Amino acid sequence: MRVKYDVMKTTLKNILIQKGFAESISDEAAIIFTDSSCDGVYSHGLNRFPRVLDDIDKGVIKVDASPKIVSNFGAIEVVDGQLGLGVINATFCMDRAIKLSKTHGIGCVAIRDNNHWMRGATYGLQAAKAGVIGVCFTNTTPNMPAWGGKDNRLGNNPLIIAVPNGERGIILDMAMSQFSYGKMEDLASKDMTLSQYGGYNLDGELSIEPKEILASQRPLPIGFWKGSGLSLVLDILASILSSGDSTQTIGYKKSEYGVSQVFIAIDPEKTSSKEMILKKIEETIAYVKDSEPIRQGNEIYYPGEQSQKRREENLRDGIPVNEEIWMKLASLY
Amino acid sequence: MRVKYDVMKTTLKNILIQKGFAESISDEAAIIFTDSSCDGVYSHGLNRFPRVLDDIDKGVIKVDASPKIVSNFGAIEVVDGQLGLGVINATFCMDRAIKLSKTHGIGCVAIRDNNHWMRGATYGLQAAKAGVIGVCFTNTTPNMPAWGGKDNRLGNNPLIIAVPNGERGIILDMAMSQFSYGKMEDLASKDMTLSQYGGYNLDGELSIEPKEILASQRPLPIGFWKGSGLSLVLDILASILSSGDSTQTIGYKKSEYGVSQVFIAIDPEKTSSKEMILKKIEETIAYVKDSEPIRQGNEIYYPGEQSQKRREENLRDGIPVNEEIWMKLASLY
Repeated sequence: MRVKYDVMKTTLKNILIQKGFAESISDEAAIIFTDSSCDGVYSHGLNRFPRVLDDIDKGVIKVDASPKIVSNFGAIEVVDGQLGLGVINATFCMDRAIKLSKTHGIGCVAIRDNNHWMRGATYGLQAAKAGVIGVCFTNTTPNMPAWGGKDNRLGNNPLIIAVPNGERGIILDMAMSQFSYGKMEDLASKDMTLSQYGGYNLDGELSIEPKEILASQRPLPIGFWKGSGLSLVLDILASILSSGDSTQTIGYKKSEYGVSQVFIAIDPEKTSSKEMILKKIEETIAYVKDSEPIRQGNEIYYPGEQSQKRREENLRDGIPVNEEIWMKLASLY
Repeated sequence: MRVKYDVMKTTLKNILIQKGFAESISDEAAIIFTDSSCDGVYSHGLNRFPRVLDDIDKGVIKVDASPKIVSNFGAIEVVDGQLGLGVINATFCMDRAIKLSKTHGIGCVAIRDNNHWMRGATYGLQAAKAGVIGVCFTNTTPNMPAWGGKDNRLGNNPLIIAVPNGERGIILDMAMSQFSYGKMEDLASKDMTLSQYGGYNLDGELSIEPKEILASQRPLPIGFWKGSGLSLVLDILASILSSGDSTQTIGYKKSEYGVSQVFIAIDPEKTSSKEMILKKIEETIAYVKDSEPIRQGNEIYYPGEQSQKRREENLRDGIPVNEEIWMKLASLY
């Protein structure tokens, strides 16, 4: 089943209005959720929306909260998210970082007490569309063991790096675990294997069987010890820059809320010419895409390229939806 | 064979003076090379020094060059490295970034036409010692295939993230390939295998045999497609922010010189209290180190912890050296 972009957006917007959000906030949030599904990131678009509604009903997400700048110095700011809607808070922070980058060349905004920002690439795209480089990362509840450890003491802490390039940009959006739990659960339910090693089985051997990894709860950090170290330092940066909760303290809560995030924007045109920037990006992308493919006829993609193609398809044909989730949401309004 | 820190430093310093560098520059550079060996990073300390001397003799490294700020806006600056000594230029840039962070909370310095910075952690440590967060990365000559490709069109583009913590800090220093060519060559010469998959053999299968990977020239990006994407965006950032050469254009040169690098510093104490920062770092490190180890009795390390221990040993017992390299260098002065 496919649903037209405008239908999905309007449906989600109306539900948020029903939940008590202001019309403008509801509109902004509905666009973000719909865009994620439209870009093919269904897990953090429509499919995640019911869980957000649940968090609103439980009071984990505060309907009347709004982000508040609590501290600033030059090009850095600290925001208290006051447990408002994650996507709205995160958009506010990247917007502030973009504005700071227009004034200072670079800007950095750290937020504490935010809720899940859903798809991190949203804020990378936001920066890229404003013509600036965007870097952002979030901590999460513990869901991955540190290198050498068995129990989950690190978050998968997604890191996003976005470069403006035309209408959409180059958007890297990567969690520190090789595969998300959502992906592994999805493949496990279909009796499918992972394309690469994704974690360890109960015997401590690398595995491509999602069921084995879900059983051991030992997903693989990207690059073994490297992704483990990167996850750790991102958590430290997010928690100290925002004076917010760390992965450890988020793990002590009943559910994942009140996370810490960092948003950095750099305006490259303050010190480099736009023509040079576009030329260099074009050359680098062309060079990498022109690699000799491992399998003849295969294409080499740059980060964000495939979601751009998916978007074009979904805007044209409608966005594929999980029928059960969609029908339930559509009946709410 | 072990050599005392001061003996190594003085020897390297005198050689650089002989090569025509000013006394203060020679001193600073000799400390950086000696520190890298002292921290256990022999490949980018003493063992790399002969190659640097060779580049000086060939004129690839310019003895009389000094870094020049060519453009600036607020908290961002662009530096022309003028092909001077890599470690000196990089130290200059991180120093500028630190100063900018003291004024603006955050600072970003991009350099073009620099030479190899040797060990990236050097500049992370520099930031951490100044009490600020340091992030830096460099591009390199193409030495790793993009995901899905066979031929080397990406650099291994090391990324460093450093957090101040006591005297030394937490220092992540990671290249985008799982293992360096140097490491693979070293293990291959000893008929040893890698601890984890490090690349592909000629049949396109993942391998722990360094000889097979050296034969295929297909080292593995950390996290498969993720490290490939991260390498690509770091190269784009470095080349557009510095208006400098990209991995592609560095690859067209006869050897690896004139690279592009970015240095970012953030002063967390501008918006967060020092006590809170130290407490959060201590708690997070303690939490992760307290993981249940995979093998009983094993320790879980944070990034930079092991090099700190190595440093203490080497300061006490002398720095282990490759005797052939050391004797040759010692005879130069």
